[in-house]
This record gives sequence, structure tokens and C-alpha cells, in this order.
Amino acid sequence: MAVEEVLEAYKAGTIDLDVALEQIQASYFQDIGHTVLDNNRKDRTGAGEVVFGEGKSALQISDIVAAMLETGANVLVTRLDEGKYQALEGLPVDATYHPEASLLTVVQDPADTPVTSVAVVSAGTSDYPVAEEAALTAEFFGNTVTRINDVGVAGLHRILARLDELRSARVLVVVAGMEGALPSVVGGLVSKPVIAVPTSVGYGAAFSGVAALLGMLTSCASGVGVVNIDNGFGAGFLANSINRL
Amino acid sequence: MAVEEVLEAYKAGTIDLDVALEQIQASYFQDIGHTVLDNNRKDRTGAGEVVFGEGKSALQISDIVAAMLETGANVLVTRLDEGKYQALEGLPVDATYHPEASLLTVVQDPADTPVTSVAVVSAGTSDYPVAEEAALTAEFFGNTVTRINDVGVAGLHRILARLDELRSARVLVVVAGMEGALPSVVGGLVSKPVIAVPTSVGYGAAFSGVAALLGMLTSCASGVGVVNIDNGFGAGFLANSINRL
Amino acid sequence: MAVEEVLEAYKAGTIDLDVALEQIQASYFQDIGHTVLDNNRKDRTGAGEVVFGEGKSALQISDIVAAMLETGANVLVTRLDEGKYQALEGLPVDATYHPEASLLTVVQDPADTPVTSVAVVSAGTSDYPVAEEAALTAEFFGNTVTRINDVGVAGLHRILARLDELRSARVLVVVAGMEGALPSVVGGLVSKPVIAVPTSVGYGAAFSGVAALLGMLTSCASGVGVVNIDNGFGAGFLANSINRL
Amino acid sequence: MAVEEVLEAYKAGTIDLDVALEQIQASYFQDIGHTVLDNNRKDRTGAGEVVFGEGKSALQISDIVAAMLETGANVLVTRLDEGKYQALEGLPVDATYHPEASLLTVVQDPADTPVTSVAVVSAGTSDYPVAEEAALTAEFFGNTVTRINDVGVAGLHRILARLDELRSARVLVVVAGMEGALPSVVGGLVSKPVIAVPTSVGYGAAFSGVAALLGMLTSCASGVGVVNIDNGFGAGFLANSINRL
Amino acid sequence: MAVEEVLEAYKAGTIDLDVALEQIQASYFQDIGHTVLDNNRKDRTGAGEVVFGEGKSALQISDIVAAMLETGANVLVTRLDEGKYQALEGLPVDATYHPEASLLTVVQDPADTPVTSVAVVSAGTSDYPVAEEAALTAEFFGNTVTRINDVGVAGLHRILARLDELRSARVLVVVAGMEGALPSVVGGLVSKPVIAVPTSVGYGAAFSGVAALLGMLTSCASGVGVVNIDNGFGAGFLANSINRL
Amino acid sequence: MAVEEVLEAYKAGTIDLDVALEQIQASYFQDIGHTVLDNNRKDRTGAGEVVFGEGKSALQISDIVAAMLETGANVLVTRLDEGKYQALEGLPVDATYHPEASLLTVVQDPADTPVTSVAVVSAGTSDYPVAEEAALTAEFFGNTVTRINDVGVAGLHRILARLDELRSARVLVVVAGMEGALPSVVGGLVSKPVIAVPTSVGYGAAFSGVAALLGMLTSCASGVGVVNIDNGFGAGFLANSINRL
Amino acid sequence: MAVEEVLEAYKAGTIDLDVALEQIQASYFQDIGHTVLDNNRKDRTGAGEVVFGEGKSALQISDIVAAMLETGANVLVTRLDEGKYQALEGLPVDATYHPEASLLTVVQDPADTPVTSVAVVSAGTSDYPVAEEAALTAEFFGNTVTRINDVGVAGLHRILARLDELRSARVLVVVAGMEGALPSVVGGLVSKPVIAVPTSVGYGAAFSGVAALLGMLTSCASGVGVVNIDNGFGAGFLANSINRL
Amino acid sequence: MAVEEVLEAYKAGTIDLDVALEQIQASYFQDIGHTVLDNNRKDRTGAGEVVFGEGKSALQISDIVAAMLETGANVLVTRLDEGKYQALEGLPVDATYHPEASLLTVVQDPADTPVTSVAVVSAGTSDYPVAEEAALTAEFFGNTVTRINDVGVAGLHRILARLDELRSARVLVVVAGMEGALPSVVGGLVSKPVIAVPTSVGYGAAFSGVAALLGMLTSCASGVGVVNIDNGFGAGFLANSINRL
Repeated sequence: MAVEEVLEAYKAGTIDLDVALEQIQASYFQDIGHTVLDNNRKDRTGAGEVVFGEGKSALQISDIVAAMLETGANVLVTRLDEGKYQALEGLPVDATYHPEASLLTVVQDPADTPVTSVAVVSAGTSDYPVAEEAALTAEFFGNTVTRINDVGVAGLHRILARLDELRSARVLVVVAGMEGALPSVVGGLVSKPVIAVPTSVGYGAAFSGVAALLGMLTSCASGVGVVNIDNGFGAGFLANSINRL
Repeated sequence: MAVEEVLEAYKAGTIDLDVALEQIQASYFQDIGHTVLDNNRKDRTGAGEVVFGEGKSALQISDIVAAMLETGANVLVTRLDEGKYQALEGLPVDATYHPEASLLTVVQDPADTPVTSVAVVSAGTSDYPVAEEAALTAEFFGNTVTRINDVGVAGLHRILARLDELRSARVLVVVAGMEGALPSVVGGLVSKPVIAVPTSVGYGAAFSGVAALLGMLTSCASGVGVVNIDNGFGAGFLANSINRL
Repeated sequence: MAVEEVLEAYKAGTIDLDVALEQIQASYFQDIGHTVLDNNRKDRTGAGEVVFGEGKSALQISDIVAAMLETGANVLVTRLDEGKYQALEGLPVDATYHPEASLLTVVQDPADTPVTSVAVVSAGTSDYPVAEEAALTAEFFGNTVTRINDVGVAGLHRILARLDELRSARVLVVVAGMEGALPSVVGGLVSKPVIAVPTSVGYGAAFSGVAALLGMLTSCASGVGVVNIDNGFGAGFLANSINRL
Repeated sequence: MAVEEVLEAYKAGTIDLDVALEQIQASYFQDIGHTVLDNNRKDRTGAGEVVFGEGKSALQISDIVAAMLETGANVLVTRLDEGKYQALEGLPVDATYHPEASLLTVVQDPADTPVTSVAVVSAGTSDYPVAEEAALTAEFFGNTVTRINDVGVAGLHRILARLDELRSARVLVVVAGMEGALPSVVGGLVSKPVIAVPTSVGYGAAFSGVAALLGMLTSCASGVGVVNIDNGFGAGFLANSINRL
Repeated sequence: MAVEEVLEAYKAGTIDLDVALEQIQASYFQDIGHTVLDNNRKDRTGAGEVVFGEGKSALQISDIVAAMLETGANVLVTRLDEGKYQALEGLPVDATYHPEASLLTVVQDPADTPVTSVAVVSAGTSDYPVAEEAALTAEFFGNTVTRINDVGVAGLHRILARLDELRSARVLVVVAGMEGALPSVVGGLVSKPVIAVPTSVGYGAAFSGVAALLGMLTSCASGVGVVNIDNGFGAGFLANSINRL
Repeated sequence: MAVEEVLEAYKAGTIDLDVALEQIQASYFQDIGHTVLDNNRKDRTGAGEVVFGEGKSALQISDIVAAMLETGANVLVTRLDEGKYQALEGLPVDATYHPEASLLTVVQDPADTPVTSVAVVSAGTSDYPVAEEAALTAEFFGNTVTRINDVGVAGLHRILARLDELRSARVLVVVAGMEGALPSVVGGLVSKPVIAVPTSVGYGAAFSGVAALLGMLTSCASGVGVVNIDNGFGAGFLANSINRL
Repeated sequence: MAVEEVLEAYKAGTIDLDVALEQIQASYFQDIGHTVLDNNRKDRTGAGEVVFGEGKSALQISDIVAAMLETGANVLVTRLDEGKYQALEGLPVDATYHPEASLLTVVQDPADTPVTSVAVVSAGTSDYPVAEEAALTAEFFGNTVTRINDVGVAGLHRILARLDELRSARVLVVVAGMEGALPSVVGGLVSKPVIAVPTSVGYGAAFSGVAALLGMLTSCASGVGVVNIDNGFGAGFLANSINRL
Repeated sequence: MAVEEVLEAYKAGTIDLDVALEQIQASYFQDIGHTVLDNNRKDRTGAGEVVFGEGKSALQISDIVAAMLETGANVLVTRLDEGKYQALEGLPVDATYHPEASLLTVVQDPADTPVTSVAVVSAGTSDYPVAEEAALTAEFFGNTVTRINDVGVAGLHRILARLDELRSARVLVVVAGMEGALPSVVGGLVSKPVIAVPTSVGYGAAFSGVAALLGMLTSCASGVGVVNIDNGFGAGFLANSINRL
């Protein structure tokens, strides 16, 4: 129940004071022992709570998903490896697991779809899981996504050949590992906001994504916003909040 | 002259082939010896070239500014310390130096102003120069800016008291040094895109802004886009490109 | 035997000189081959030796526990994974293993309980093992502990809702991973000492807890004391020494 | 005026509604343009706001000090170098500058003095400025301080000779640069809380205090709380909050 | 005298044994007190010793230059700031100081010029001093150099417009700061060896050239050889050894 | 078909416009879903695309290899561990797996062999896999390779004994882990270009190859070009491009 | 055969020229394919070659050991894990494997024993494997070793109780992880050379031994020589070279 | 007075109890306000206290020197820059300042000279100040020192030419910046203990001596002991303690 409904019900006498107080608090947060659900987040930030699957047990995730489903929310669990997914209990039949991006989604109340679209661009085949995490996250929140994969800067003609697609998106997520140069090149070709995602692809001096991260933070293209290494989710989330403006 | 004008002039016979070719190239780039101006950038990216003042001599900057003014462009020079500013030659009378943010601006052709606004939020008094760099950059590109200064997380009531202002902006730039926690708190309170700017304020384990940078990249608030340490310009630029969508 | 008892026994002739010397030394330390037990530590520092389980074999730990039990001491083994615990030999029946925090405790001589309490606050569900290590350590030393879990800064209302509990503790342990901002917020809300514990929760630029560690060391809230990454034990230990003042 | 006084005055009709609202807000915070004073901090955290002098101009600091003095608060400015101190305007006659620790203090309302004391222990002569910052901060908040200087671990007899003084304090601040080993040794000798302060004393692999910081965070003595490199102020502040329990 | 000449002179009786031995040793190295000149280096490595000016006094450099000139060698002093250059003594009249690259050259015996050329490409105006160090070094060793400045990746058309020049060089030195992406783009466009030089241009996460260095080491273009940050000399030297093959 | 052939066929009417356009594009790049093959790379850079096996699935690699073989190209897959190699499907019978260097090669069209040769020098037995990656890569591109293994600087006579072999190569790849000193010594003995490859051999302060990498970048021998840690492939590739000049 | 013997045999005509040359070279080094044995090392450095087991296959190690045994040398293999040891072939019956330190030794020609001794001191039980590596290495080279284990600085009386043993050694190896403070304390108590060995014991800010390494390098006790993290072998080797002076 | 003398004087009645107690304590340490002199250090460690000049004021150093001279000790002040030296007061006439190494020495009681000698070897002219700090320290403690300068590994014949001198020393200090390879080469040529000193000579990836430090710690020559970056003093001190065995 939303707070307004609770107040009405209480006024109407269909619920008593204790129930009313409990319901009001539950619209803000809900303590399920190991976890405190932030049920008010969607009202505040425009997007409901998302479950970070790493470091939580299958049991904890099962509990959280169940509690969220009861509130009618859509559910997105990130960084959920296949083994832990198999161990989840009580999932609804329409839950979908995306192994390529280690995501679980349950959509009870589909979001409306903006008319403009998000482009997700990636530099190499090995960056695919992170790019998919971004694309699927943006889709989870209702966006149309154009995927442009494997167009790294060592073969410029590949990216130049897709300039029209790049320029038709309202916001671009650009994913790259190794030296992470792709956002600089894309940023110099389009007038829309660019969100850069460094990946941990590479070895040696790539330092698990640090080289790409530093490269993106110091990009000679102005105004690129950067998210954490391998954080496809964060990029998709930010792309959604920009695409919905 | 834009390319269309050149073609017309050539067709009309008012310029000959050599001049036409030279003019067409100049609409793309212009080599002034030490520097190659990217005159086509505004067409491609929606915002003209900006001059990074650090590491260039006063003489080089004077040359670049003169060449840009001739093309009719607005001029923004960043990271221009007071001494170098004093040494510039040939500045027009309406050039404005902003010592608090080390910026120089010359506006020949004011940009139109979007109806929505940009908020620039900063954590402490020492973050002021970077916050001003962001705010003045956004204003240079035509945006209306709301400044909310000195509202760091150790005194939450200061930020909570200004929630309405935070929520009325279309995009927020959040500037903080030390542990850089402010974007996490702001990101949990608003539904608009948040651009986080770490500053080099602090000492010891602040490592000249690294602590704030890492904190912002790993923010528990979803979807914060981060720019380089002390890069107020980049944040203002990105805010403009989002606010203009 | 305490040194006083040894001297009395020797004077009374119930033990001879060799035994007396051996007993006196044993009250200071005891060499069991691979390890030298610091039996005098409780007298000096108010808390007996604690066994760091990592990097010791099950056999070595079994030896150490047996030797400590013989002196009448309480036993706390930290960082003892489940496999090594299963391999221990000769444990008394009242030994308790806490898998959620990888601790083993044996209490022979319960500590007295201070009237004031310790609060253990954590930012997210994934920080739970470290928070429990802190809470169980404080309890091992006799303290009453209030647990406040999953109240990270991206949903401020969760922490604000529990302000009374926060303020009623005599000392607070605050546990957080990722950007580690929670101690700054808590430190700005209470007048009691805050002990911050960074955790290795997070990925990429979290650098296994470094982001949280730097954030806590540079907190804009004054006077936060920080312990090592994931060192719930150290925080619980320090909380005990403060709570007992 | 405290909020209670405002309400009384309003009820009594000696102030009107606008004044009452303004006064109430001022008891929470006060916006003086570049800075927002957190006037409520002492009520919340037991200690009023302290001014971090680094990165603020002399003009800004003069403004802040004046505003604070008007509220009747005591003033502590840290990291105020001698040149900036000389440039301050409008200081009261009883303002005291401590060049050895770069602190400015103005005491309008002396704090009461706890019966127990704080010990400030330092490893070497070069650590003196940081140790004094800690000691003077603790004294500013009303504590009695015992100073034990230049007792580094390479000459153990120096520290052992002062064991009685160490053990008679209620809380100990231990300051050391280079390898930062002193807190480990002191922590093994006393039962009271130890606050460790790494300093930037040393060269090469000392990495401006990083070696000492890491050493203190990984101390084999249990339960040492660590503050930022050279953060004597933070240590003195935390010592005060512990000594006042 | 070369060793062959010494042996002939000794055989002919024009020098005695002591002189012969001294001369032979001098053709290998020469001890001038603070420095041991490696007079045999040109025979071994194809290029004579070069003087690293940083960390040597003007007096020491004057001695070294004088000793080298006496052997008939050409002299190149790198990293010689203007002040130290002014303080040198005994320079020949044809010594040339290059302030833009902090180099001093004296050419007594001009090297022959290969028919092929070296291209020195730089990303931005601020990279000019390092690019010039590379170009002047290559010229000192006799090479023809094509300079292509300020063609960074945020404006791709600038580099694409000069593809013919890029492809006509036998070896390319590519100089860039910030994210250092230019060698990846150039490496994908040419079939000749590319030597990448990261510069310390940039701030914040550029970490004095580390971002560019890591980017170049992890370049997605195959087979780029990297030299130290700001090491224009090393790149010019390597370009010479390749161009002379 | 090369573009010339397509044009001829279209002119002759043996293919229609759609086929012609498709063929022309395919000569530049080919999108096979997860990957975009850069079929034009050999024309641009003198060497065809090479497959980086790490982070790609066996299925993806099988697809890529099949597509490349169809174009008539030679295939080199690097960083392909034995398990993934076993899982590849559809390999031609003449595919060769090199377990010592984790490389797969298929040669359909052998490259011509330059008259000069490449030397691959390694410091220790543990550096062997990286040295072989370099040597096999150079051989894949048609070069004759001289291997000089286990000649580290702690036993100088081993390297001095092979000076003739070192000096007879046209370009030298020098592979070393730990302190990475070998390129400095070799660089002081030869006049040919030296490509240095740091390896991750070592422990502790070797930091997985960082010690060797820094050592090679700061080598006191002039003009050494460095590639990424363990990047034998890159060194072999660069050696080929130099040896073919 | 030593070189002298070869020359005699050749003069006596019992071997011909080819054999003589081969034998002479073999006394310097011996190429067994993957490895070049430095058979001359003992003559040059006083101690024969030691085999670093990490990164070599069991087959390679078996070959090396066999070749060394044939020359009559003693064999020490370090960093040989149990699995690889089990896979070795052709070991002589008197080969001894030391699992606690992962060492293999074969002594064919026992070294003479100096009258003075080496002390190996360690801070904690978890440092035991590294301490044993040092002690066994020193014993392999003929030294008498005194072991003083588990005497870390948090319980000073343990180390003070063994002062006589410390002072009776000619050289001390001091092994410690975590903050690595023990060498500073020992260095302040003895007049003999101290060799410090940081270990990777610890977690979080211990950074796999970096905290201890930095602490030892910046020790306030003068003149401590430090070896690599976990390098017990290097410390034992250096202790031998000092003890034999 | 030594403790024995005090006891005799007290027994003889020439001093009373208070004086005796004061004298006895003074033989252990002496508190001069800002500093506690460790007067017992020479008895414990074989070498008296040395004054670290950095971070101490000229006044503090003057006090310390005066107090030490009164006890009859020799005085060595390290890292004393010329300006601070000029500001010292009360120096005896035979005090000697060594500007090349920033050392001050006063010798009241010359140490005896061991028959064996110390070699100080340096790689380049820029390493001279650190090498001299080592050499002068060793001489201060009475040792004979052989200096071998500018023999870096890029010109091996320079070091090979001085092999006899290297081998005739009892202990070698080897000083190098940049890649720090010299100790590996020297360690492979001699049988005596080698102490390696990394210097901060170099730029870029030399990281102020870190490259050399890591190189020396991971040296492929066994048993090299390393001291802090630029710590010539520590190396000279350790060389003395070894040379005196």
C-alpha cells in the first residue's frame, strides 16, 4: 500500500493504528533480517532498488527477491554467477537469467519505453559481457538499445562505417578494455553524452582495467562520464536516467 | 565561411578554385604552426574547441585565441593561471578572466539558454575553485546554473534543507574532495543524472584526489558518472550536453 | 599459577626451586615449539592473547588452543575457515564455531559485562561477515552489542530511522565497503567515538577495500579511528577497550 | 539564541515570526556565502565545528572566524601556515597562534576538564609538529595532556623508562613516521585505547607517510585505531571523545 | 687514436710502451674523476655516448663535453635546463642550444643521412617539447624528420588528412599525453614500426604520464614499442637505429 | 575477392549490384555477430588480424578462425590455453598448437622470408614461454629466428660467449623477468634495435612483472623499445615489422 | 674437470684438442637445452648455482639436478611445491625434501662449518615457512643456525628474554610479516649485521608483504639490509656470505 | 661517566645518591626537551647515535650536537642541507661539512681502522651524492674505502676493468638509479656481501627510485641486501658493521 492508501484506510477504520504505522514504515523500508529493503527508492530516484549479487548467499538473494516481488516491484540481480543462480529458491516462472551478463530479471510491471534510444558500443569481443550488462540493464528499465560491437580503434573504418547509428542515439555507452581509447574517438564524433565503461580485459600493464580507467578519465574528448571498471550496470542505469529526461 | 557558402561563392564565380579548396579545408581544421585548430568540432560534437591552457605558452595561447576569434567562435581557455593571463596579447576588450576558476572567456555569439537548469553542488569551501570551473563552463555554453555550496555529508541537515533546489535541476554536478561521499548521498535523493567531480582537496591518504575518485567510482548510489580529479570543466561540459537533450 | 602463588608455594616448600622458576617463566610466556604463548598479555593489556588462524596449520592451532585452555584462559581464534575448523583436534565440548564470521570461541571464565553497550553498524548485506566478526569479538569480551545492518548512505532514511539506537551506544563500530561513506555520515550524527572498518566488498576501483580505507582515513567527520580492511576483530577489540573505560 | 530561547521569546511576543524562523534556522546552520556554518554540530556531536585552514583564503577564514565568534563558540583553525595567519583580519586579542603546530585557537567559553588525562607519545624529534597538533587539540577541548616525546623503538629503554606515565593515561595518541612501529610496541604494553598517527617523516620508501600508515593498520598489537597521515588534529579530537566518556 | 693507429705507431717506434697502453685504454674508456667516458660505445652500439644533463652540475657537464670534444666526437646533452646551459664553460662557438627541447648539440663530424625518413607525430600542443626532443635527436644522428603536430584522436580528420605523410616514413615516433591513444590509431593505419612516447601532459588521473604509459603498453594495435615517459631522446635514438638498418 | 576483382566482375555482369556492394564491404570488414573481422588490416598495416584468445569462448574462436580461413588468411591465435584449444571445432588438419607458448597457427599462404634474422634472447628458464611466443610469432610472419636462452646478467660470461650471434641479428627481442636487467646489458653491446619484454617471472617485489617493466623503461642503455608484460606476441610482431624494412 | 686438469691432460696427450676445448667451456657453463648451467659461479661468487623451482617444469628441474649432480655440486632447489617434488625423476636416495620450506637439498660435498653462528628470528608462527627457508639455506651452506621463533614486538618480554642468544650470533636474519617492526627492535639491541625479511603474512593493508617491506626499508634502526618479500633463501645466502668472512 | 665510575665514586663518597642516580640514568638516555639522546646506543649496537637532520630545526640540531659533544661522542649529522648547516650555532672548530653528501662530522675520538676495506661502487655521475654519503659514513666509523664511480652496466668493460678492486674489498656498497641493474652484475662477479642502494636518479617510470628499488629487491644475483632509496648512510653503516666482524 502507498502511504496515501494507508491513511485512507486508517481514516475509514478498515485498519487500526498499529497496522497503519507498520504499513507506512514498510513503504519506506522493510527489514528482513540480513537486509533492509529501500522500498522508497523508486519514488526518490526514479528507479527501484537493484540487488548486487556478489557477496550475498543464494539464500539471502532468494529472500530479497521474494520480498521485492511481494511489493510488486521489478527485480534486477547483477553479478549473479550461474552456480548461485541455480541455487536460488522460489523464483517465479517468468524470471529470466542472462548468462552472458550474469543478470537475473523479473518484470512484473513493464516500464514505458522512451522514443529515443541508447547505443551500447564495445571495442572488442572480450568486452561483450560488460556491454551486454549495460544493454540489458537499459532494456530492463524500458529503453530501446542499439548494439555496436567490436569496433575498436585499431581499425577505424569499422567505427566510421557506423557513424549514422552512433549519431542517432540520444546517449552512448562506450565499453573498452586494454588502453580504453574508444570513448575518446567516439566522443570526438558525436554531440550526445558519452558514458565510458572500462573493462578488465587485458593483461600485464592493463592492471585489471586500471589502464582503461585512467585512459577514460583523462580522455582528450571533453565531457565523458566514467563509471567503475566492468560496471556495465551503472552505465546502463545512467543511460536510462539520461534517456528519460 | 561554412562549406555551403564556399560552394555557393565558387559556383557564383566570386572565388576561384584555390580559394574554395582552402576555405573548405579551413572549415575542417586550420594549421597555425604549433597547433591545428579543429574548426569542425562544433558541427560534429555540438560544442566548439576549448583551449587547455596548461603546458602552453602565453604566446601559443594568444595565437590560438586570435585564430579562433577570427572564425567567429566563442573562446574558453581553462587552467590559465593569473600570470599567464597577464602575459596574453591581443585580447579583445570583452574578454573576461575568472580568477577563482582560472578561466578566460570571450563570447562573440551567445548560445541560446535551455529552459531547464544545471545544479552545481560542492562539499566544502576548499572545493570552490573546481565547482566554479564547472558552473562557469556550463554558463559559457548557455545554461542557467544553481550553486549549492559547502553542504558536505558530515552535516546532513545542510543538504537536506536544500532538497527542493537539488530536485528542480535537470542534471547535477557534485564536487567533493577528501572521501568524496557527497555524490553517493545526493545520488540517493534525486532521480536526475549525477556527474561526480573528485577534487584534490585533502592531504595524506587523500593522495591528491585519488581517495575521492575511488569513492565516487565505487559509489553505492547507482549510475553516477565520474570525471577526472579537479576536472570542473569536463563536468560542466557534460552537464551542458545532457541539459541540451 | 600466578607469580604470587608460586612464591608462596616455594616459601611453603611445596614446590622446589626448579619448579618455581619454570612456573614463574610460564606466567610470562610458554614455548610450545612453533609458538610462544604470551601468557602475561592479559595482565599487561587487559585482554588475553587471541589466535590469528590464517597461515597456521590445524595442528598448530590445536596445540595453541590446548595450551591456552590449560592456563584457564578464554580462547578466540579468528580467520578460521570451516575446513580448518573441522580438522582441529581436542576441542572441548563447549567450543563454539561461528561460520558467518569464521571465529571459534571457548569461554571458560566469562568476562563481566559493562552497563553500556557497543553498536555495530553496517552499510550492506555483503558487509555482514565483517560486522559479525566485530560484534562477536565484542561479545566475547563481555560487551552487550546492538546490531544495525544494511543502512548504507544511498538510502539515508534507513540510518536516520535508527538514530536513537545509534546515540544510545557508548562506542560505535561502522562497517562499510565500496566507497566507505557510512562512517562520515554516522560521525556527523553522534558524539561518541566511531571506529571505522573498511571491507573488501566491491570490485574494480574498490581495489579490495582500498577505496573504502582511503575514504575512511580522509573522512570529513572529525576523529574517526580506522582499522585494517576486513578487520572486524580489531574493531571489536578496540570497542571493548573503550567500552570498559 | 538556542531554539528554546527563540520559542520563549516568540511566545512572549518579544520577537515576531520572521525573526523566530530566522533564529531557529541559524541554530542549525548559517550561510555566509562561500561557507555554510554547521552551528548545530556541537549539539549533535559534542564538539563544535573546526576550521580546516588549508585551501581556504585568509579572507574566507577571517569571515568564518568572525561568524563563529559571534555565536559564542570557541574557534580552532588547523593547518594555518604562518603567512596566512599574518593575513587574517579582525582577530580578537586573545587569539593564540601555535606556530609549532600551525593552529589558531580562540577560547571564549573554556570546556570543563575531565579528571583523567590523555598521553601523546611520539617516536622522534621530527614528529613533533604532528604530536603538538594532537596535544594542543586535546587541550583545546579541555583535556589534560602528558607529552612523551622521542621514544622510538630503536632504543626501547627510553619507552620502558616511562611505562608508568603511559599506563596512567586513559587514552594514548602515538605518533610516528618512517616504519611507524611505536604503536605496536605501546599497544602491547597498555590496556587503554591507542590512537595511532602516521607522519610523513622519512624519505624514499617512506612514501610521505604511507609506510607508517600501512604499518599501523597492520599492527600486530590488537585494536589500534588509525587516523590519516599527519592528522594530529583527528587524533586529539578522538582522544577527547574517548576521554570524556 | 684508434687502436690500430696505436699499434702501428708503437711498431714504428714513434710512441713507447707506456703511451701505447694508455692510448689503447683511452679508446675504451677515460676516467675524468667524477665520470668515466665510454669512448668505445660508438664502435659497439653504432652511436656514441650521450650526456644525461639532469643531476649533473654545470661544472661536471663542462668537463665531460670538453673531454668528448677532444676525442673528435659529436656531443648531445639532454635535459639541460636553460640556467645550467648558461653556466657551462668552454663551449665551442658552434655549440647549439635548443631551448624548446632542453638539448645542447655540438656536431664536429656530421653523420651521413639515410635516404628514408623518420616521422614524429604528436597529439597536442603541450606535447611539443617531447616531440622536439625526439625530432632533434633523430636529426642529430643524421636523419631527415617529418613533423606532424597536434593531431590527437578527438579530431580524427586531422590525422586522416595526413595519412600520406604518415605512410611515407620508414619509422614513426608517436608522442601523446593524457590517455595516450594516438599510437593505437596510428598503429592501425601504417605498416611501419611505431615507437610510442607517453608524456606527462595532463593532471589528476593522468598521474604525470602513467595513464598514457599504460595506455601505450596495452595498445590494441599490435607491436608498438614504448619508451619512458617524456623520453623523446630514447625514441629518437631508437628511430635512428631502425632507420639506419 | 579483392575490390579490383569485384569491380571487374560487376562490370562484366557476372555479379549484380547487391553482391558487388556486399563483397566490397567484406574486403574491409565482416560482421559475424559477436565479432567484426578487420579484413583490410593486412593491406593497411602489412600484417593480418591476429586473434587474442583470452576472454573469448571456444565457440567464438572457432567462428573467427573459420571466417578467417575462408578469406584465405593465415591464422594466429594467442593466449589460447590447452583446454580451450581442445574445445575448438572445425580446425583444419594442418593447424598447429604450440603448448609451450599457448599459440595456435594455421598457415595457408606462407610469408616470404627476409634474408636477415631476428634474435630472441631470454634471461632464465622460467622466461621460456614468453620467449617462445615471441620467436614463434616472428616465424609465423616468415622470419628466421635465433634463440639464445638462459643468459641472465648474474653470469655475464654466458651472454659474452654468444656475442657473435647477438651481433649478427638485425633486430633483437630480449625477454627477462625479476629485475629485467638483460636489455640494458644487451643494449650496451649491439648496434641494432632492441625490443624488451618484461615477464611476470618472480615474486614479492617483482609485482607480477612491474619491476622488470620499470627497469626496462628506465634502462641506462639508450633506445630500447618496451612492450607489455609477457607480451611475447607484440615483440615478435614488432621484430617482424623492423626486419622487413 | 677443473681447467687446470684439462690443460694437464691435454699436455699429457690423454685428451685431444676437441675434448679439451669442450671441457674448458663446460667448466664455465653448460647448455642443456632449456637451461644454461653457470658451472663457474662457485669460483666467482663462493657459492654454486641454486635452482629457483617456480615457473620451471618438473622435467626441467629433473634435468638440471641431474646435470649439477654430475659436476659433483651440491644441489639446492627453492620454491618447489610438494606436487612438483613428487613428479621429479632420477633423484638420488640421499635427496631431502623439506616440505615446511618447500626446499630440496642434495649434499654431495658438505661445506665446512664456520665457528660462528647465524640467528634466524621470526615474529609469528605464520612466518615459520620463510624463517625455515632462511635457516635451511644457511645450514645447506654449512652454517650453524640458532632459531628464535614467535617473538613479535607486541610482547616485548619474549624477545628481551632471549637477548643473550641474539647477541651471540655473528649475523641475524629477522623475519616478520604484517607491520614488520621486529628488525627495528632487534637492530636497536645488537651490534651485528641484521638482514630483514618481510613476509606476505597479513591481509588488507598488509598488501601481501608490502607493508612489512616498506617498514623494514624505512626502519629507524640504522643499517638493516632488506631482501625481497618471502625471500628466506636470499637472507640465508647473504647470512652465509657474511658469516664466512 | 660510565656506570662503573659512578658506582665507584658513590662508594668512595665523592658523589651523593642524587648525583649517582642522575649520572646512571644519563648513561642510558638524556632528555634535552625536544629530544631524548640514546647515550647507551654505542654499548648496545656498537655505534653511537647518528642525527637525522631532515625535519629538525637548526636550533634543535645545535642542541643535540652540543649535548653529544659533551658526552665525548663523535657526531654525524645526515641530510643537512647547506642552508641549515650555515645556521647551526656553537659548532667546534674541527667540525667538517661535506656539501657533496650533505653530511656534518665531528670526530673527537677516532675509531680504529679495520685491516680490510669497503668498496663503494656507483653506476653514474648523478649517483655521486648518495655514493659519497655511503663512503663518508663508512670512513666516519673508521673504515678504509675504495671508490669506483660511473661504471654502469651499459658499458660493461668499465666494470670488468676494475674487477681486482671489486674483489679485494671485504664488503661492497653498490649505488645505482634508473633500472638499478648494477648490483645484479656485481653480485654475479664477487663472493663478498653486496649492499645495494637505489637512488632517485631518473625520471618518469623511475618513480623517484622505485624502479631501482624493485630491481634490486628482485635481483637475479643471490643474497643482495637492499637499503632505502638514497640511503647512502644506511649502506655505509651496515658496511661498517660487516667490515668489523
